[in-house]
Amino acid sequence: MTAPVHLGLDVGGSSIKIVAVDPDGTVLRHDRLEIDPRRHPAEAAERVAARVADLAPATIGIGSAGTIDAAAGVVLESPNLPGWSGVAVRDLFSTSLGRPLAIDNDANCAAIGEHWLGAGRGARSVVVVTLGTGIGGGIVLEDRIWRGASGTAGEIGHVPILADGGPPCPCGSRGCLETLASATAIVRLAGERLAAGEASRIRPGAFTAQDVAAAARAGDDLARRVMESAGRHLGIGLAVLVNLVNPERVVLVGGLAGAWDLLEDSTRRALSRAAFRRPVAAVSVVLGTLGELAGAIGAARLGML
Amino acid sequence: MTAPVHLGLDVGGSSIKIVAVDPDGTVLRHDRLEIDPRRHPAEAAERVAARVADLAPATIGIGSAGTIDAAAGVVLESPNLPGWSGVAVRDLFSTSLGRPLAIDNDANCAAIGEHWLGAGRGARSVVVVTLGTGIGGGIVLEDRIWRGASGTAGEIGHVPILADGGPPCPCGSRGCLETLASATAIVRLAGERLAAGEASRIRPGAFTAQDVAAAARAGDDLARRVMESAGRHLGIGLAVLVNLVNPERVVLVGGLAGAWDLLEDSTRRALSRAAFRRPVAAVSVVLGTLGELAGAIGAARLGML
Repeated sequence: MTAPVHLGLDVGGSSIKIVAVDPDGTVLRHDRLEIDPRRHPAEAAERVAARVADLAPATIGIGSAGTIDAAAGVVLESPNLPGWSGVAVRDLFSTSLGRPLAIDNDANCAAIGEHWLGAGRGARSVVVVTLGTGIGGGIVLEDRIWRGASGTAGEIGHVPILADGGPPCPCGSRGCLETLASATAIVRLAGERLAAGEASRIRPGAFTAQDVAAAARAGDDLARRVMESAGRHLGIGLAVLVNLVNPERVVLVGGLAGAWDLLEDSTRRALSRAAFRRPVAAVSVVLGTLGELAGAIGAARLGML
Repeated sequence: MTAPVHLGLDVGGSSIKIVAVDPDGTVLRHDRLEIDPRRHPAEAAERVAARVADLAPATIGIGSAGTIDAAAGVVLESPNLPGWSGVAVRDLFSTSLGRPLAIDNDANCAAIGEHWLGAGRGARSVVVVTLGTGIGGGIVLEDRIWRGASGTAGEIGHVPILADGGPPCPCGSRGCLETLASATAIVRLAGERLAAGEASRIRPGAFTAQDVAAAARAGDDLARRVMESAGRHLGIGLAVLVNLVNPERVVLVGGLAGAWDLLEDSTRRALSRAAFRRPVAAVSVVLGTLGELAGAIGAARLGML
């Protein structure tokens, strides 16, 4: 008899990552399915079922972008997955896959994953911060995700840190951390400086945060200052976490965490300046170790719990 | 045989409030002892012991201003109680009172009190925000205080909400909530406007936040705008809490909570604008119901736990 297989799905705006793990979390297989985020997820559920037909998983968990009602199994709203908003995704996938399953948002799943097997292992309190086009977070307190009164706790990307004069945020507020330290913010800040005529090796037009990071590594002054600004605001956002939640560990994951070499100095400096000495001394700020599979591995764990 | 008596002490910068409650929290007696905050607490401990000599309390709890190491029983640092900083206050009072006892910071004790018997009763997650010369907080999650990795969680007064250009804060950072919405901030803001020559019924010089509130109630335009600004920034600070912690209830206590009639509109408006719809809909923001005894009653409860 072979050990049971546990399946985790991480649903993003353009693809579903699929991972199969054994009970210890060893990855047996992983895969990726491109999706059209504007379409109802019924077809995606069937395609996932076909892809894993040989596996007979013991449990299944899903992490999805957006606001999730974990208890009801519904994706309430998800700007990056318009076709999924309002859909009872848990029951839909459960029918297609022939198994009961659990669902939560992708940042919470990344937190569960990093706490289980990654950089959050062994810590009593971990906040995982997802750095990408947006900024999200998942809070693990005493081995459990803290979901809050409406299941939306951990939205560190939408704490106001420049409330009065900061950039407008898609959430309707101003000066949210996400408007100052996300990949989107980096592109906007670089674009503003280019438009103001500052010299740079970045070619105006369609460039990404990765391009800005690459230019910064190559010594481009504009790019370095943009990354420094993002890092400083990230540090201020982490100060909010550190003074309010006082976690033992903060784990950075997501695409922009790949630019930590460019952010780290200014992030740590701003954190130390903006937060109290004791909770700063008590927290380790580290990079995640599960890479882009953190969310899918955490989803697999969610299904097992 | 009579029911046991539980003693709670709430140590502030100028006095110790003493409360004796029965096991249900009914206040049997309360008292106040003036102290000199610059002096070592040995004398205060003896005076408390003399004051309660007839009570033979079953348990004793202390809530103290400052940063407390609850596990070690030490007041680590307390700007308002310089004579107490670095003192093993738990053991000192324990010796004087002839009983083991528990200690925590005053905001945590206020949270325990309001959650036990006040406006936080029955809620799974409560954040108590203390509004006074400073702003503090205590977080109760699933019936327990969340103290964090170094015992300093809940410092909502020191989350940066105007990180780049805000007023300097005694904590060393800038634009902390406390610099924009505390009683101290209200006095500073009113003073700045008076100094700029704006007309007001407030007499320049030694006035308090209470004076500004009284002027606002009497229709003074400058005072109303100052209170409105404090309320707006308080709402932004609550948005940080609501988006990050997603609590079921936020309970406002402390001297400045008495001016809630002047703050409420702008606070609620700013909260709704700066935080997500779902967690705003899920939270009740209410005034505490235990008044100035919240901390002492919570301290008594702390001793019972």
